[in-house]
Amino acid sequence: MQSKRSLRIPRILCPQLPVPQKPVPVDAEEAAHLRQVLRLQDGAPVIAMDGRGRAVSGEYFIQEKKPFIRTTHAQPTEVREANEEQGPLVLEVAVIKGDAMSWVIEKAVEMGARRVVPVLSDHAVVQVDKKGAEHFVERWQRIADQALKQCERLNRLVVEAPIALGELLKKPLASGAIRGVAIEPRAREDWPAHALSESFFREGGQKHVLIGPEGGWSAHELELFRVESRAGSLRALDLGPLVLRAETAALFALGCALSSRVAAAIGD
Amino acid sequence: MQSKRSLRIPRILCPQLPVPQKPVPVDAEEAAHLRQVLRLQDGAPVIAMDGRGRAVSGEYFIQEKKPFIRTTHAQPTEVREANEEQGPLVLEVAVIKGDAMSWVIEKAVEMGARRVVPVLSDHAVVQVDKKGAEHFVERWQRIADQALKQCERLNRLVVEAPIALGELLKKPLASGAIRGVAIEPRAREDWPAHALSESFFREGGQKHVLIGPEGGWSAHELELFRVESRAGSLRALDLGPLVLRAETAALFALGCALSSRVAAAIGD
Repeated sequence: MQSKRSLRIPRILCPQLPVPQKPVPVDAEEAAHLRQVLRLQDGAPVIAMDGRGRAVSGEYFIQEKKPFIRTTHAQPTEVREANEEQGPLVLEVAVIKGDAMSWVIEKAVEMGARRVVPVLSDHAVVQVDKKGAEHFVERWQRIADQALKQCERLNRLVVEAPIALGELLKKPLASGAIRGVAIEPRAREDWPAHALSESFFREGGQKHVLIGPEGGWSAHELELFRVESRAGSLRALDLGPLVLRAETAALFALGCALSSRVAAAIGD
Repeated sequence: MQSKRSLRIPRILCPQLPVPQKPVPVDAEEAAHLRQVLRLQDGAPVIAMDGRGRAVSGEYFIQEKKPFIRTTHAQPTEVREANEEQGPLVLEVAVIKGDAMSWVIEKAVEMGARRVVPVLSDHAVVQVDKKGAEHFVERWQRIADQALKQCERLNRLVVEAPIALGELLKKPLASGAIRGVAIEPRAREDWPAHALSESFFREGGQKHVLIGPEGGWSAHELELFRVESRAGSLRALDLGPLVLRAETAALFALGCALSSRVAAAIGD
């Protein structure tokens, strides 16, 4: 689907966009990537993005061995409202194995999730301690930012710090927000579930979808959900008759959310 | 989402299910996996699946150094109609890089695609020649069968032999079937597109979704689609404002198709 990589103008995240006569420096890590991977030359065209919906065409240049971006445009050349690119989905996903987690984060950016919240749960295969968390989050955010440039999204997806399930459930949701939790087929018996489908995302308000780890939810966690669900603050979600892997459930939620937005945009 | 692997009864694909007094032999490759990876012992419980919607509980045993499955059940213990597990989606996807293709095939099984058709297109990163094709298809089918057992789907997803785009377009579709082709945002200008969303899958009939390679469709291929679309035999599909990678587009199509089925099953 993407155009040939070589034909595309490289995109660079810059907290501050350049304006005429005011070039901005390129962050060290970004600069290394531009030089070593993309082999960018002095004077190459680039697009600077602020990660908050605005981008401007410009030129990469080196001054006193340091990389900068300058532009001749007084106004951003691309502007996109957050709502145009991202839907109501807040993806709360148990920390899953390396590759799968990276995939989910990359796809969350491309499919327009609002943010990703890594959740620590009883049966999680990967246990993240306090010290390790920072390292993980940095890595995940780097993957998200890479995907941002790739898919030409202008509003950054934030990967939050991992949070324990109990704490997550205690935090109040924004007004009008709803949380649904993916429950596997066997645990769903005798528990009225809503469909995880386009319609879940159609009504207004943020939609939190909470997805368990490879090992499934523990009995204790399921009990917690039942209590919350009786109190009306949480819905059990039905994801169909098959046993989905954690990342598949996440991808499915992303697909439903994007489906509802594409349908609304085109009026289908 | 899946239960702890160790707690699950291993599933084995057997073209013929065992019946009482008539054990069936286990295929050599499957046997190696059971012995070496799952360390299955003589007498271990297993589930034999025929890949056509029926499965039976049984027992693994060794006789004269060869592995077999026997059962005491005269009837299958699990039966599922194909339509319960798989929707109308036929996923036609340009051959993409190894990892991404494997992911798409695995997710196609879990999310209930009917079959996967690898397509050879002008800008495909991976070129499959006649000799290589057999090897690829074998590998993909193995991935699909592995996913089948994992997600407890009973009807096999078939990965077809790779086909050139031109040939694919010439093959007549089944009665009532529709083909949509994912067109990237830039190529979609001045071309009326339908939403790739739940609604595309809601009306009856098979839905073929055709997805291009990382390199995008070539000008020649886009022209081919325009001709087909004017003749009414193909629809351009809009996948939203961002540039999706090939595998993301495929996952999105899978998500929409599953969304429509979950919604229909629950009546949401």
